[in-house]
Amino acid sequence: MPVDTDAAVADLGEFRFECGESIENLEVAYEAYGEFTGDNAILICHALTGSQNVASHRTQWDRQSGGSSGPPNSAGQARAWWSDIVGSGKAIDTTEYYVVCANVPGSCYGTSGPANEAPDGEPYGTRFPPVSIGDWTRAQRRLLDHLGVGRLHAVVGGSVGGMNALDWAVRYPDDVQCVVAVAAAARLDPQCLALDGIARRAITTDPNWHGGDYYDAETGPTDGLALARQIGHVMYLSKSSMDQKFGRRAAGRDMVRDTFPSDPAADFFPYRDIESYLDYQAEKFVDRFDANSYLYLTRAMDDYDLSEGYESDAAALAAFEGEALLMSFTGDWHFTTEQSETVAEAFRADDVPVAHHVVESDHGHDAFLVEPENVGPPLRDFLHNGVRGQAVTDTVAADGGDDPEFAPVHTSLFSG
Amino acid sequence: MPVDTDAAVADLGEFRFECGESIENLEVAYEAYGEFTGDNAILICHALTGSQNVASHRTQWDRQSGGSSGPPNSAGQARAWWSDIVGSGKAIDTTEYYVVCANVPGSCYGTSGPANEAPDGEPYGTRFPPVSIGDWTRAQRRLLDHLGVGRLHAVVGGSVGGMNALDWAVRYPDDVQCVVAVAAAARLDPQCLALDGIARRAITTDPNWHGGDYYDAETGPTDGLALARQIGHVMYLSKSSMDQKFGRRAAGRDMVRDTFPSDPAADFFPYRDIESYLDYQAEKFVDRFDANSYLYLTRAMDDYDLSEGYESDAAALAAFEGEALLMSFTGDWHFTTEQSETVAEAFRADDVPVAHHVVESDHGHDAFLVEPENVGPPLRDFLHNGVRGQAVTDTVAADGGDDPEFAPVHTSLFSG
Repeated sequence: MPVDTDAAVADLGEFRFECGESIENLEVAYEAYGEFTGDNAILICHALTGSQNVASHRTQWDRQSGGSSGPPNSAGQARAWWSDIVGSGKAIDTTEYYVVCANVPGSCYGTSGPANEAPDGEPYGTRFPPVSIGDWTRAQRRLLDHLGVGRLHAVVGGSVGGMNALDWAVRYPDDVQCVVAVAAAARLDPQCLALDGIARRAITTDPNWHGGDYYDAETGPTDGLALARQIGHVMYLSKSSMDQKFGRRAAGRDMVRDTFPSDPAADFFPYRDIESYLDYQAEKFVDRFDANSYLYLTRAMDDYDLSEGYESDAAALAAFEGEALLMSFTGDWHFTTEQSETVAEAFRADDVPVAHHVVESDHGHDAFLVEPENVGPPLRDFLHNGVRGQAVTDTVAADGGDDPEFAPVHTSLFSG
Repeated sequence: MPVDTDAAVADLGEFRFECGESIENLEVAYEAYGEFTGDNAILICHALTGSQNVASHRTQWDRQSGGSSGPPNSAGQARAWWSDIVGSGKAIDTTEYYVVCANVPGSCYGTSGPANEAPDGEPYGTRFPPVSIGDWTRAQRRLLDHLGVGRLHAVVGGSVGGMNALDWAVRYPDDVQCVVAVAAAARLDPQCLALDGIARRAITTDPNWHGGDYYDAETGPTDGLALARQIGHVMYLSKSSMDQKFGRRAAGRDMVRDTFPSDPAADFFPYRDIESYLDYQAEKFVDRFDANSYLYLTRAMDDYDLSEGYESDAAALAAFEGEALLMSFTGDWHFTTEQSETVAEAFRADDVPVAHHVVESDHGHDAFLVEPENVGPPLRDFLHNGVRGQAVTDTVAADGGDDPEFAPVHTSLFSG
């Protein structure tokens, strides 16, 4: 049975962003699951286009709307995005923990962002202050103060949410016992920076973007946002998963490329399953996400660097005295196993108890969402017993040897 | 000293494309280097956006224009794109071989394509017949007839030009002694199909594309074509090469993002070297390439399947009685070493003498263009002595064992 939950928007007052600009009132939309007992709070950090609706449950919105779904505008991946991991009896058990998930500043699921109204009554658009992952962390800290939560048992995040979790260990090292970063990294590599830059260019060169001032227009930059999402989508899958899922098959006759312009010559060639899938996903995405938010959040992700302001990743994490779990997936080329190993090494250099749990997987980056059977057990055990948790493995052999157990990724096609 | 060369456009008369449509007169722009002695002809097949200008030399255009460069509109990668490999004393020695390279139908360097004038005096645009790699091969055969060349000593191609070379072995097996496919494949994988589809969508959703009818307009779909090129460019590099070349560095202060719209929030974040590089390359590209041609040629590449019309790759190649060289690069994720090995296995199944020469490389797909020191020696020796050429290696051990020598790419990040 779905658990009852607080879903609300907190008014946190004036907020000064890391860029130096301020807004008068930062609103943060969040959901909270379970009962707070003083030392059982877990903060979950969502991924790029995710929302606070981490699990499936009856929310305030359901009650208010008589049972219809979730927070306004949420749909698809943004809705109940980790319901296999978070819930009653799940790895992050809401009957045991008090679980909080907040929409990040700059996003579009209820927390202040470009689509919100500025004091002048017009949408902020690109007048909204630039946002960093540090701002996300600081906003979350403010929200937890508002909720009466001091020290957290754990911060858990996947993808850029994992970067957010690592930022907690740097920024508020005394406030967290356990840090879990799933399919994350200390910083994006240039290949991903390139693809994110191309995705943003797709949005800003869409004539309907209008410098970000499209909220009252008939059409927003949906073509550009669709392209941006499709580029992202390819980053979330692997060659292997695309082979298995789509191959080179043509889509069925009932599938037509009718959502955007094409040309007569195209009809000679098959409309392939993979194209049809990406087109369909992009159509769904543009209905649920704001183009300016996509610019803001990808910039925050691209800009994140664990070691910023420090001499090294290890120096950044030096004040952290809890335990850390890194989890990575061998088929993930967006956030690679090598990158998680780099973070593990930084924790090890600080003598922080850390485990880097590597999952053999074909699913690419999406694995952290679609393989709860592999993510759940080590996560559950880590939250109970730290790095000694039974299902938790590490890349460093227990005998003290330091050869990583995972396949040598330097032989990969990608790193050459 | 540059060698004198024929650079011309051949009128080949009516041409019926594989799709069934015809044009009244197929014009094929080509260059020919060296002297034909009857059995020394080598056909070179260019890559997606390449041209017939494979090597550096004095062309007819130079002579006519008093020394200015190359064929009309050629620049950047399209100009003298393999001059380290082809020329006097080079691996493909123009003092020894008669070398022909022709611009493919559908392209925009002088061979008939969408930008050309139709019989009604207007540009074809998307009324130009859909083009396949089979059409490229058939047009090349017609051109060679026109030049008086019967059987070829070799067909050599890189990237999609390698697919073109393989198509020669299927379509005209008696006409070729040696087939060389560098960084090629029997077919694209779904990941590359996806990225090509997104690139085409970037062009067709650009309002300035106008259904392909933009030749008389003030502005063509330059934004969309720039995005398409940038997506392609990422496919040509590797994570490792991008790390080494750009890292996460910010571009210098004199570099500004002024070529396309941006927003105030962007200014808070660095304009990175990798973005600056891709933007610069895209600007150059849109000056030299036609957007409709990009649609046509990527579709031809995506559609190519070595085994089409046959039960298997080996069955398609069964009539070929020459020798074959496959060359691949470990850092190439666009056309992988695994994919070249698949082609090698097909040749082996037909008892065709074949060598799969794997180059350890960080350069990604671009390696076939930027590593002449690795491409040249095996190519030179293969052209002289076939698979017994001294610098030619194979993935199958000489003792008859059949374990490929290259690192097991199934452990790659990409394939999971």
